Amino acid sequence: MNGKKGSIVIKIVDRPENGKKDSGDAGESPARKWIRDVWQFAKEDMNRITFSLKVGLAVLLVSLLILIRAPYEVFGTSIIWSILTVAIMFEYTVGATFNRGFNRALGSLLAGIFAITMMQVAMACGQIAEPYIIALSIFFVGAITSFMKLYPSLVPYEYGFRVILFTYCLIIISGYRMGNPIRTAMDRMYSIAIGGIVTVLVNSLVFPIWAGEQLHLELVGSFNAVADSLEECVKKYLADDGSSHPEFSKTVMDDFADEPAFHKCRATLNSSAKFEAVANSAKWEPPHGRFRHFFYPWSEYVKVGAVLRHCAYEVMALHGCLHSEIQAPYNLRCAFQPEILDATNQAAELLRSLGKDINNMKRSLLTNLLKRVHSSTERLQRSIDMHSYLLTSSHEIQDCPPKLPISQPSNTITRTSKDSHSQVEESESNDEKLNSAYTKQVQGDSYHETMRKQQRRLYSWPSREVDDYEDGDVDTEMLQKMRTFESTAALSLATFASLLIEFVARLDHLVDATDLLARMAKFKEDY
Amino acid sequence: MNGKKGSIVIKIVDRPENGKKDSGDAGESPARKWIRDVWQFAKEDMNRITFSLKVGLAVLLVSLLILIRAPYEVFGTSIIWSILTVAIMFEYTVGATFNRGFNRALGSLLAGIFAITMMQVAMACGQIAEPYIIALSIFFVGAITSFMKLYPSLVPYEYGFRVILFTYCLIIISGYRMGNPIRTAMDRMYSIAIGGIVTVLVNSLVFPIWAGEQLHLELVGSFNAVADSLEECVKKYLADDGSSHPEFSKTVMDDFADEPAFHKCRATLNSSAKFEAVANSAKWEPPHGRFRHFFYPWSEYVKVGAVLRHCAYEVMALHGCLHSEIQAPYNLRCAFQPEILDATNQAAELLRSLGKDINNMKRSLLTNLLKRVHSSTERLQRSIDMHSYLLTSSHEIQDCPPKLPISQPSNTITRTSKDSHSQVEESESNDEKLNSAYTKQVQGDSYHETMRKQQRRLYSWPSREVDDYEDGDVDTEMLQKMRTFESTAALSLATFASLLIEFVARLDHLVDATDLLARMAKFKEDY
Repeated sequence: MNGKKGSIVIKIVDRPENGKKDSGDAGESPARKWIRDVWQFAKEDMNRITFSLKVGLAVLLVSLLILIRAPYEVFGTSIIWSILTVAIMFEYTVGATFNRGFNRALGSLLAGIFAITMMQVAMACGQIAEPYIIALSIFFVGAITSFMKLYPSLVPYEYGFRVILFTYCLIIISGYRMGNPIRTAMDRMYSIAIGGIVTVLVNSLVFPIWAGEQLHLELVGSFNAVADSLEECVKKYLADDGSSHPEFSKTVMDDFADEPAFHKCRATLNSSAKFEAVANSAKWEPPHGRFRHFFYPWSEYVKVGAVLRHCAYEVMALHGCLHSEIQAPYNLRCAFQPEILDATNQAAELLRSLGKDINNMKRSLLTNLLKRVHSSTERLQRSIDMHSYLLTSSHEIQDCPPKLPISQPSNTITRTSKDSHSQVEESESNDEKLNSAYTKQVQGDSYHETMRKQQRRLYSWPSREVDDYEDGDVDTEMLQKMRTFESTAALSLATFASLLIEFVARLDHLVDATDLLARMAKFKEDY
Repeated sequence: MNGKKGSIVIKIVDRPENGKKDSGDAGESPARKWIRDVWQFAKEDMNRITFSLKVGLAVLLVSLLILIRAPYEVFGTSIIWSILTVAIMFEYTVGATFNRGFNRALGSLLAGIFAITMMQVAMACGQIAEPYIIALSIFFVGAITSFMKLYPSLVPYEYGFRVILFTYCLIIISGYRMGNPIRTAMDRMYSIAIGGIVTVLVNSLVFPIWAGEQLHLELVGSFNAVADSLEECVKKYLADDGSSHPEFSKTVMDDFADEPAFHKCRATLNSSAKFEAVANSAKWEPPHGRFRHFFYPWSEYVKVGAVLRHCAYEVMALHGCLHSEIQAPYNLRCAFQPEILDATNQAAELLRSLGKDINNMKRSLLTNLLKRVHSSTERLQRSIDMHSYLLTSSHEIQDCPPKLPISQPSNTITRTSKDSHSQVEESESNDEKLNSAYTKQVQGDSYHETMRKQQRRLYSWPSREVDDYEDGDVDTEMLQKMRTFESTAALSLATFASLLIEFVARLDHLVDATDLLARMAKFKEDY
């Protein structure tokens, strides 16, 4: 969405400093800083300025109606209702404005009809009963509309119920006090209609901001956010040698300042309500711009968003692994680095391609990409499978760090069942590569040394029981616990890999959902 | 929250059928069904009825002011503004109403002051310039308020900016047209004040619905939802023998009809916006009911909610494991059942205790519970560690199902380093128990048979490549793939356990956050 898609640079980004002309920050007056912030905010999305000027234009147009006297003489004081209508109806997007307008129009109409009927009934009941009937009807209209707007399926029309309530009260009361209710009601209706028409015209004809376009861009942005976050998380996981890890208790789980993509991903997770609201607005919009046919499947966007969130949950779990107290040793992570990185990059590329296809409204099959993602994931699976002894036999390794077990049951079996398939050979060479990588790591940075680094973190788990270690025979009990943790620590790599594989498995559903969207929205085919 | 906390019964709950007097559903008219639905909806939360009747009462009171003639004669037609104010200001909770009232009052005041000032300026500029100055000022007020309400930190005051806009327009225009702007403005202010006062009094004195209470109950409910969902997910994972699994492609990832607790948990995950909105309303409320001191830390509720969501992400990942295409064999899951169940139950109990403590506004240390959670988790870790050969040596098992490897390196090492610590003995007996359980399972339901059941699922992954299996030398290639999947399948149990352990690790943070809340909110201590 913001152009920097290709690669992730993990660094601490100081948000407000993004601007172009940021000279010295020190010694700047608060007023200047404030002006710069506002300017920055406006520059981020020029639609904000457009929207503001459009509201100004709409109220100006309605005010002119009154200032030039003619409509004022026709409608009297009722004309001020047109201003109220503009102020209340003017929403950010065209769809939202149409939606509000519909609520307003239908609400006013229903309230008007009901008020006039009620008025006739009350008048027919005679002078004495009239105020009682009116009062009772007001009470019931208030209670019933308030109850109905709480009902889940009617919540989107909340505004309509408010309109019914106050329009009804206004018409029936001013009718009672000022006489001639139909005349009053009609004048007000015309005024509201004038305000509504001005609002709709200005909103949809002057630089329209379409909810559909917003939804489209939002979805594409979400794809990139998840891809970025996945890459960021994996990169950090592989780069983290446990030395620069902050004290866990200090990393409050909600602010990782050095992980900008994570924040975007979490924003995506929390965006379900926003997606639905924007899609709801988009449904009210006529065909426009790139979305040229009627009944455009906006609800499919919401569904693709839901599947994407489903994938993003796995990224959150991967992120949980990254910041978990129990960490796989650095060298072990290094050993599986090529496979993990490959699977990650392929998955991220697939995600970005999907996002790009949606953005360009193209429908492509992505078969090659999917195949590559699957084969790289299978490679990761196979690698984990073949080296599973690394994941569980940490006891041995700890006893004799540089010596690696040369022949392993799982390996031998794979080799005896040798067939002509090339993948086996590939995985064998891969196997050797891995082993040597592992040996190199182990030799370069001795296992015990790494373990010592890890120790601090192991000690700190479970953080509540740290005090218990202080007394008692620390050596034996601790040794016992340490062993368990070491093994669990190694298994945590398997967890990370499994989550990654599960993420890829879910991509299938994402591809299906995107394909359905592409078919329903009639994206142009591009095979 | 709804009383059924202790145990989870996994069954398909047909939502609308919850009522008491559900006789024959067939042959029922739509109208009757609709009435029953509405009645059901009202019965779920009686506050909904209360709220509706309160709105009715408030509009009735304001209408009476007009019907009894006296205020009408003082304020003239301006008095209808009080009705508008009630309809717009009356919100569900006391805090939200106060917040709206504040926005309305400050907005009206600012608009009034600015309008009167502007009026004087325009009048001083002479007859000809006056309308131009007024029109220009309207345009700028519209543009500036619209821009400001988009600014993130000002979004909560969106309503206030709308009020400024229309109040300004109304005052300045009716002043221009009708003369005597100050008189008009004042009359309208008084009317609005009357409406506002009636709204606030009715809302806060007649069966008040406090946002604070809602937030409190919402948080407690979230604790129970996460605990329920955890138990449900683990129970289903252990009970699922792969036979009754629906075709994966059919379980769209978002509707698991037989998992009511999962839905509640997902609702908790999506509730961040709601939490913040309710907390924002609660801040406006005076001390009331159980929340008796000023500056009650409502924002801490939001923070605890965030930490709880952080835990719930792990539950979502566990749920992902449960519905993953790659599943650990049933017998393997059975082998670790006691440890997994124990850890789950302890964790769920801790969650429920935390929720209960918050509900009762008690501050207890929960040391025993925490210790039990940790020790049961350690037991699970140790068990996974000692039986890690089960997780990786599936090749051998497949070749000779009933024969289990008797001496394993990891085991021997644990035994040679024998110390006097009782935990080792305990884990040894545990070890034997597990082995026998595993053997029993393997004998009862032969491994191959289970594998055949799994096969369908393995075949279907990656679902896109199913067609590839149809042609080519299925046997050799498939065998190769199957082996990899089998091992990965076994490792998926390790993933499940790791996620469970990570969940427990996060509980520490939850305990800390809850404790901070208890201290700041001055819950009564109960050690």
